[in-house]
Amino acid sequence: MGMSLTYKILKNNLLKGELKAGNEIAVKVNQTLTQDSTGTMAYLQLNAMNVDKVVTDISVAYVDHNMLQSSFENADDHEFIKTSAAKHNIVFSKPGNGICHRLHLEKFGKPGKVLIGSDSHTPTGGGLGMIAIGAGGLDVAIGMARGLYYLKVPKVYNIELRGKLKPWVSAKDIILYVLKELTVKGGVGFVMEYTGEGIKSLSVEDRATITNMGAELGATTSIFPSDEITRDFLKKQSRESDFIELLPDADAVYDKKLIVNLDDLVPLAAFPHSPDNVHEIPDEKIKVDQIAIGSCTNSSYSDFMKLAKILDGKKVHPDVSLVLSPGSSNIMKMISENGALAKFIGAGARLLEAACGPCIGMGQAPKSNGISLRTFNRNFKGRCGTMNAEVYLVSTETAAASALTGYLTDPRTLGEEIIIKQPEKFESSENYFIFPSQDENERKNVKIVMGPNIKPFPIGEELKDTITKKVILKTKDNVTTDDICPSNAGLLPFRSNIPKLSQHCFETIIPDFKERAEKNDGGIIVGGDNYGQGSSREHAALLPLYLGIKAVIAKSFARIHKANLINSGIIPLEFENQSDYDGIDEYDELQLTDVENSLAKGEFTVKNLTKNNEFKAKFNGSARELKILKYGGYLKFAVSDEFLN
Amino acid sequence: MGMSLTYKILKNNLLKGELKAGNEIAVKVNQTLTQDSTGTMAYLQLNAMNVDKVVTDISVAYVDHNMLQSSFENADDHEFIKTSAAKHNIVFSKPGNGICHRLHLEKFGKPGKVLIGSDSHTPTGGGLGMIAIGAGGLDVAIGMARGLYYLKVPKVYNIELRGKLKPWVSAKDIILYVLKELTVKGGVGFVMEYTGEGIKSLSVEDRATITNMGAELGATTSIFPSDEITRDFLKKQSRESDFIELLPDADAVYDKKLIVNLDDLVPLAAFPHSPDNVHEIPDEKIKVDQIAIGSCTNSSYSDFMKLAKILDGKKVHPDVSLVLSPGSSNIMKMISENGALAKFIGAGARLLEAACGPCIGMGQAPKSNGISLRTFNRNFKGRCGTMNAEVYLVSTETAAASALTGYLTDPRTLGEEIIIKQPEKFESSENYFIFPSQDENERKNVKIVMGPNIKPFPIGEELKDTITKKVILKTKDNVTTDDICPSNAGLLPFRSNIPKLSQHCFETIIPDFKERAEKNDGGIIVGGDNYGQGSSREHAALLPLYLGIKAVIAKSFARIHKANLINSGIIPLEFENQSDYDGIDEYDELQLTDVENSLAKGEFTVKNLTKNNEFKAKFNGSARELKILKYGGYLKFAVSDEFLN
Repeated sequence: MGMSLTYKILKNNLLKGELKAGNEIAVKVNQTLTQDSTGTMAYLQLNAMNVDKVVTDISVAYVDHNMLQSSFENADDHEFIKTSAAKHNIVFSKPGNGICHRLHLEKFGKPGKVLIGSDSHTPTGGGLGMIAIGAGGLDVAIGMARGLYYLKVPKVYNIELRGKLKPWVSAKDIILYVLKELTVKGGVGFVMEYTGEGIKSLSVEDRATITNMGAELGATTSIFPSDEITRDFLKKQSRESDFIELLPDADAVYDKKLIVNLDDLVPLAAFPHSPDNVHEIPDEKIKVDQIAIGSCTNSSYSDFMKLAKILDGKKVHPDVSLVLSPGSSNIMKMISENGALAKFIGAGARLLEAACGPCIGMGQAPKSNGISLRTFNRNFKGRCGTMNAEVYLVSTETAAASALTGYLTDPRTLGEEIIIKQPEKFESSENYFIFPSQDENERKNVKIVMGPNIKPFPIGEELKDTITKKVILKTKDNVTTDDICPSNAGLLPFRSNIPKLSQHCFETIIPDFKERAEKNDGGIIVGGDNYGQGSSREHAALLPLYLGIKAVIAKSFARIHKANLINSGIIPLEFENQSDYDGIDEYDELQLTDVENSLAKGEFTVKNLTKNNEFKAKFNGSARELKILKYGGYLKFAVSDEFLN
Repeated sequence: MGMSLTYKILKNNLLKGELKAGNEIAVKVNQTLTQDSTGTMAYLQLNAMNVDKVVTDISVAYVDHNMLQSSFENADDHEFIKTSAAKHNIVFSKPGNGICHRLHLEKFGKPGKVLIGSDSHTPTGGGLGMIAIGAGGLDVAIGMARGLYYLKVPKVYNIELRGKLKPWVSAKDIILYVLKELTVKGGVGFVMEYTGEGIKSLSVEDRATITNMGAELGATTSIFPSDEITRDFLKKQSRESDFIELLPDADAVYDKKLIVNLDDLVPLAAFPHSPDNVHEIPDEKIKVDQIAIGSCTNSSYSDFMKLAKILDGKKVHPDVSLVLSPGSSNIMKMISENGALAKFIGAGARLLEAACGPCIGMGQAPKSNGISLRTFNRNFKGRCGTMNAEVYLVSTETAAASALTGYLTDPRTLGEEIIIKQPEKFESSENYFIFPSQDENERKNVKIVMGPNIKPFPIGEELKDTITKKVILKTKDNVTTDDICPSNAGLLPFRSNIPKLSQHCFETIIPDFKERAEKNDGGIIVGGDNYGQGSSREHAALLPLYLGIKAVIAKSFARIHKANLINSGIIPLEFENQSDYDGIDEYDELQLTDVENSLAKGEFTVKNLTKNNEFKAKFNGSARELKILKYGGYLKFAVSDEFLN
C-alpha cells in the first residue's frame, strides 16, 4: 500500500509516537519562521528559555506586519526582534524586505523539510514540497529551542488536478474553486495533497498561491510534490542544490479525494464576507472603489508581470484606487529593472511597501460602504479596517481587468492570452537580511533591546490541587478569539504588551472583564459551544493567563484555542451534561478538587459552592498536555528536566 | 527708486488698498491649492458659500497627508474632496500622485502669479518666481470663491547669494545657513527675496528647496526671480509657454539684507529640536537609527539621482532603516525607468509612497530614543511620532553618506564630486489627475459624498452687543495651537470632524475643557503672552467656535491665530494693563458691553461681575476684521452683499 507525500515527510522527520491518523506525534523541526506581530511574543518566550542558540537548520525572523509605525511601538518591536535574532543565531529580515512567506519560498524553503511558522499562512511553503505548518508563537519558540513540534497526525485529502487551465484562469481560481467545493471547514484535520497531470502546468508561484490559501480550508497544511518544476524554481533562485525530488507513491492511499478538471474552471470571486462564498464573475456590473494586488497569496513576480502586460499604456479608472504591494524586495527590484513598475505608475497605481499591508488592515481601509477587490486570502467583515466595506477575493487577472473598467470584470474580456515568461534567474540580493555572527562570543555580547511597550511574557503557576474561583464571565456560543483579544490597526502595536492588551480582553462582550478579574483574584470562565473559534492567536490565551483565569468550562472548544489554553496552563473542561451550563450564574463560586487525579482520569466533579450543588466536567487531553498543565504552561514544561530527558 | 520682485508681483495683482508695508491690501488670487488634512474644511467652507465654480485661473485639490488609511475616515475624506472638486471645477490629484508642492511646481505654478495654499509650505512655489503664500482653509475657500486674498503688506528681506557652492554642499545647506543666521523668527513680517550671482547655479529644484524651508524663518513667503533657469525647467516640464521673465529692478530697495557667500558654506545639520539649531557635521560619531529622504523640501528628481549615485552597488548600514518618499509619481516613474529605484532596493532601502509620509508623522516613527536624520523641514519634538526621538535635518547628500556609514557623516568624505544632469524632459504623465468636466450640467449633477466622519463646519453667531460669560479657562504664556487642537497620527483623521476633535480641545492643559464649555454655555478664555503660537491650523479657532467661546482676552497673540479667531467670529482682546491678568480667576463671570462701538474704538471696559471690578482691553484689527466679527465670521461676511459689492 503506497504512501502519500505527506506521510513520507512526516515519517522522515518522526521523533516520537506512531504515524497513525489521530495520534499525537513529535516531528523534527528543520526550519522556523516568525513575523513581527506574533514574533515578539515568540522571542520573549525563546529568551525566557535560556538557550544559547536555536537548534534548527535555519530560523528566520521576518518583519512584515507592523510597518506603518504611527508611534514608537512598531520600531521598538523591530529592534527587539533584531537583537533577539542576533543573540540566538537567527536570520533577521529588515522591514522592506518583503512578506515572510514569499521570502521564505525564495530563499530558505526546501523540499522534504518541516517548517513551523507563527503565522497561519505558513503552508505557502507547501508549494515547494515541504510540510509547512502555522503554529502559536510558543510552539515556534519551543521548535527553535528544542527542535520538535507536537501535532495530531492529520488525515490526507488528495486533490487531483486534471487537464490544463484555460487562458485568463489561474491558480487563484483553482483554490477558490476548492473552497467553493469544500467550504472553510472542509480541510479541518487534513493535509491537502495535490497530485495529477494538472500540476505540471503550475509553477512554484502558482502552487504557493494554492497552498497559501489552503489555510482558508481549515487544513493543517497543503502540499505539492517536488518535481522538475520545483528544481527549475530553485535553480532560478540560485539554489538548485536544495532540490530533491519528492513524490507520493503511485498507489498512495488517501483518506479523501477531490478531482478538479482544470479545463472546466472559469474566473471566480469570493464574495463578501467569506473565502468560500465563491461565485463566477456576474454579468451585473459591480462598481469598485479600490483594488489591491499583493499579499502572501498573489504577490509573485508573475503576478506583477501579468499586471504590467494588462496595464501597459492604459489608465487606471478614475474612480478606482489601485494599490500594489509586491511580495519581496527582489521582486520589486526585478519589476523596476524590467520596466513593469514604471508602467504601473504611468497608469496611475499606488505603490506600497513589500509587506502584508492592506491584507491585515495595516492601511488602505476602503471608504465607508466601499467595495474592494483584493487578490488576498481573507475577506472577513471588518478585516480591511472598514466595518461596512465589501471585499471580494479574486485573481490578479480579474483585479487588473477590473482596474481598467472600474467594475468587477471577467478577465477573459481582455482578449488575447498573455504569456508570462519566468526570468532566467530571479534576483537574489541579500541586503535586507542580517545574518547572525558565527562568533559565539559576539552573539553572547548582544544586548537585547526592549522598548517600553515590550512587557514580559506572563508565566503560569504550578497546578494546585484545589481551585476555588468565581465565574467572572459566562458567555454564549461561538465566542471568537477576536472577542477574547480584539485585533485592529490600533491594537496590533500592543501585541508585545500583554498588560496593556489585557485592558481590552473580552471588550466586545463586557466592558469590565479586567476589573472583574482584578477584584476577584482571577476566576473561571463559563463558555458555550465552539468557544475560542477564529484566528489561532495565542494572545487569546495569554490575556486570560495574565488576568488570573484558572479554568474555562465550556460546552465545546475550538481545537487551536484549546491547545493554546493548555499551553498557557489554563484548564479547559467540557460539560458532561450540557444542561449544567444553565445552572451556573456569573459570580457563582466554583471549586475543583483533586485536580491532578481528575485530569489524569479525564473527569472532574465541580462543586458550585454558591448554589450548593455539583456537576461533571471532562478533560480531554494527551499525557503531554496533562504534564503541561501540571507545570503551569508549556514554557515551564519545556525547560524542565522531564522534557529534556 | 527700484522695486523688488515681490512688490512688482503684488502691484500687478493689487485689488484693494495701498502697497505700503503694514497696510492691509487685497490681491487677486490666480491659483489655489489644498492638501487633504486642511482641504476637507476648506471644501466644507467653499460648499457652504454656494458658488457654482471657482473664479481662479486654476485650483487644485491634492491628497498627500492622510494616506495611511487605518480606518474609513481617510478614504472618506478623499472621496469628499474628489466630489467637491468635480462640482466646483477644481482639479483633483489622486492619492499616490505625490506631494502638493512638488506637483504644483511641476504642473501648474507660473512666474508672476499669486498662489494661496492651505499648507504652510506653499512658499515652495516661490522657486518659480511666484508669490505663493500659506493660509488658513477659509482664506483659501474665499480665494476660490471670490478670487481675492487679504494680507498685511510685508517688508522685503533681500538674501544676496554670492559665488558658487562647493562640491557636496547643496541648496539645503543654504537655507540651513540662513536659518542659523536669522533664526525661526528672523523672517516674521518679511518676504525673503533671493538675488545675486549665486542664484545662477541653482536649479528650480534647488530654489524650491530654499523657498520651501523659508517657512521655518516665519516669513510670509520666499521668492526667486524667473530667469533662463526657470524657462529651462518649464520647458522640460513641457510648458515653456508658461514662462515669463521676472526680475527685481537693478536698484531695488529692500528693508533688510543678508549676504551669503556660497563658497564658504559647508554641509550643515539642524540638531534637535529646532530648524534653526544649525551646526556643522561634528567629528563625534552620532549613531543613526533611521534616515528619511523626501518631503516637500528634498524629494526632487535630482535628490533621488544623487542618492542613486551614492548608493550604487553599496549596502545600507544594517543598523539603519533608510526610507524614501519621492515627491511625485512622475519622479517615481523617471527613477524607475532609469534604474535608480532598482539601485535603492538593491542597497536595502524602504520605498514609501509619493506623499508627505514621515514628515508629518504619518508613519515611520523612530524607535524609542531613536536618532533620525531627515531631509525634511521641521524637527520639532514629537513631530516624528516618537516623543523622545532626536531628529536632525540634513541635505540629501549628508543623508545618503550617513546611510552607508550608520552615523551622521559629512558627505565630503565620499570623495569625487557627483554631477547630476537634468533630464532632457521631465515625465509629465497625468493619469493620477482628474480634471473637472467642462460641461456645466455635469458639474451640477455631481453629488458631494460626505462620509459619517465628515461633519458640518461650525458657523458663528452675529455679534451681540452684550456678552456675559464665565472664564472657563485661564492659561499661562505661550499656549500653542497644538495645545488648543492636538495633532498626531491618531487625531489627524478627525480634522473633518470638529465635534469629535473638540473632545480633545486643550487636553494637554486640562482634561475637561469641553465639559466646562458645555456646562457654562460656552465662555471666555483668558490667556497669557504669545497666545496661539505654533502651527497655523485654523482648527485651533474652529474648536473654540464650536464650543461656544465668544472672546479670548490675552496678554498678546500670535499673529496667525489671532486672524483665525477673527475669521471664526471670536473676539481677540489684549489687556491694556497686563497686571489685570492676575486679577481674574477661572469661573469669574465677565461682561463685555457696547460691543460693536468698543470694537470700532478699539477699546473695551470689561466688567468682572464676580469680583465686582473692571479693566481695560484693546482690540487691534482692520475695518474689514471688524466687519467679520460683526457678521459672526469671515464665511458669513464673504457671502454678504456688503462683501460682494
